[in-house]
Amino acid sequence: MTQGLERFSFNQATAKHWPLPDVVDGCAAAGVRSVGLWREPVASYGLSRSAALVREAGLSVSSLCRGGFFGADDWLDDNKLAIDEAAALGSPVLVLVCGGLFGRTLDDARSRVAAGLEALAPYAQSAGVRLAIEPMHPMFAADRSVVATLRGALSLASPFPVEAVGVALDTYHVWWDEQVFPLIAAAGSRIACVQLADWVLPLPADVLLGRGLPGAGCVEFGRFLRAVDKAGYTGPIEVEVFSASLWARPGKDVLRETIAAYETVTAQ
Amino acid sequence: MTQGLERFSFNQATAKHWPLPDVVDGCAAAGVRSVGLWREPVASYGLSRSAALVREAGLSVSSLCRGGFFGADDWLDDNKLAIDEAAALGSPVLVLVCGGLFGRTLDDARSRVAAGLEALAPYAQSAGVRLAIEPMHPMFAADRSVVATLRGALSLASPFPVEAVGVALDTYHVWWDEQVFPLIAAAGSRIACVQLADWVLPLPADVLLGRGLPGAGCVEFGRFLRAVDKAGYTGPIEVEVFSASLWARPGKDVLRETIAAYETVTAQ
Repeated sequence: MTQGLERFSFNQATAKHWPLPDVVDGCAAAGVRSVGLWREPVASYGLSRSAALVREAGLSVSSLCRGGFFGADDWLDDNKLAIDEAAALGSPVLVLVCGGLFGRTLDDARSRVAAGLEALAPYAQSAGVRLAIEPMHPMFAADRSVVATLRGALSLASPFPVEAVGVALDTYHVWWDEQVFPLIAAAGSRIACVQLADWVLPLPADVLLGRGLPGAGCVEFGRFLRAVDKAGYTGPIEVEVFSASLWARPGKDVLRETIAAYETVTAQ
Repeated sequence: MTQGLERFSFNQATAKHWPLPDVVDGCAAAGVRSVGLWREPVASYGLSRSAALVREAGLSVSSLCRGGFFGADDWLDDNKLAIDEAAALGSPVLVLVCGGLFGRTLDDARSRVAAGLEALAPYAQSAGVRLAIEPMHPMFAADRSVVATLRGALSLASPFPVEAVGVALDTYHVWWDEQVFPLIAAAGSRIACVQLADWVLPLPADVLLGRGLPGAGCVEFGRFLRAVDKAGYTGPIEVEVFSASLWARPGKDVLRETIAAYETVTAQ
C-alpha cells in the first residue's frame, strides 16, 4: 500500500489551466515528487524549457500523455515525436490513447492499433520509453479508443517485450468491468502506469469532463490499489481527473484537494 | 437473415409519447406483426384493455420492459407483478434491467442480482414467461445495470434452465465489446430477445436519450444479425431507440422511419 506522498504523482490535466511553472512550483512546495505531463502544455512552454523546469525543481515525470490515435493520417510521425518528447522529459512512459473507429469497423480499427504498435515498439524501446496502452471506458470506443477493456489492452501488448509495451490503468475507465481484478493479476509486469479518478454521476454532455476526485464516487480504490500492488506494480500512482468544475478553480486549490483525496483513498 | 417485416417488432419506447392505441393501429396498418411493450404505458391504458387491444389487432407481443432493479426495496413484489403482466399480455419475455449499485460494491450488487434471479426464476417459469437479463452499456453500471457485458449476463443466467432465464441483446449496449461475437455464439439458445439501436455521437447529458435508429451510427448490424441467426435465434428483432429527437416527433413518422431503418440494415 502507498505511504504518504512517496508514490503520488500529480497529473497536470487535473488542473488543466494551471500554467506549467505554477504546477511545478506548487508540487515542489507541497512535497510532491512526481508529475504527469501532457504534450500540449509542454509544447507551449517549450520542450527543453519544460524538461529543465521539472528537473531543477527536483521532480520526476511519471508519464507523458498522449500518443496513439492510430487512425490519424500523421500517426507515425506524431507518435515518434511523442516518444522523443517523453525521452527528452525523462518520462519512462508514453500513454497511448489508441483512437476511435476513424470510419473503420471495430476489428479493422483494432488491427490498425496492432500494426501501429509494431511500427513503434522498437523506436520507443531504443528511446528508453515504454508505451502504455490505455483501455478507455467503452463510452469512448467510437471516438477515442477502440481499446475498451484491460483484456483488449493486454492482448494488444502481448506480442511485445514487457519493457517496450505495457498498459495504463485508469480506475475511471475500468472500474465497471467484472473481470478487472483477475485481469490486473494477469497483467503483472505489464502495468506501466496507474491513474486514479472516480466515477460520478450525472454524466455531462459529451461525457469527457465528468470525472471526480478519488473518493467522490463509486470506485473501490482500496481494492484497486491492493490489486496493483499484489500484481507487483511499485511505480507512481497518478491522480488524473478531467472535470469541468475542477478546471474552473485555482490550480493550487485543485492540487491541495487532489492530495487530500489521494491520502484518503490510499489509507483505505 | 430477416425477410421483410416478418420478424420485425416495434418497441413502443421508440415513440415514447405515442398513445398505445395509436401504436397498435399504426403497426397493424403498416403490416407490423409484433410490438415490444413497456409497463408504464400498459398500466396507464389498463393491463387487460392493453392485452385485448393488441390481440384484437392481430399483433403479438415480443417482450415486456422491464423487471429487474434488484436493489430496490420492493424488488420481489414488483418483479412478480411484472411477470404477471407479461403473462397477461402474452409476452414470452420479460426484459430485466438489473439495477445499479444501490450503495453496494459491484460484487455485492451482482450477488444481489443472482439472488433475485434465484427467487424469481421458478415463478417466471410457471407463468410461462422467460426472464431476459439485459447487459447494459458500462456507462450505466453505477445507476442502471451492474450487468455490463454479455459475458456477465450469461454467467448470471447459467445456473437456470434455458427456458427460464435468457439474455436480451441490444446492439447499443454491446457493440463495443471485442468479445461480443464469440459470446453471441456461446450464448446460443440463451438469446431470448434481440433489440437494435445505433451508437451515435455526441452523447447528451445523462447519456440515456442519445441513441440512433439502426444505420445512423457505427454498429455493424449485418454482422450482428448474422451472428444471432447463426447462434440459432429465430425470434423477433425489435427496434428500440431512446432518443430525445425521435420522441419529439409524431409517432407515425417515427414508425415509418423505424421500418425503413430496419429494412435497410436487415438487407446488409
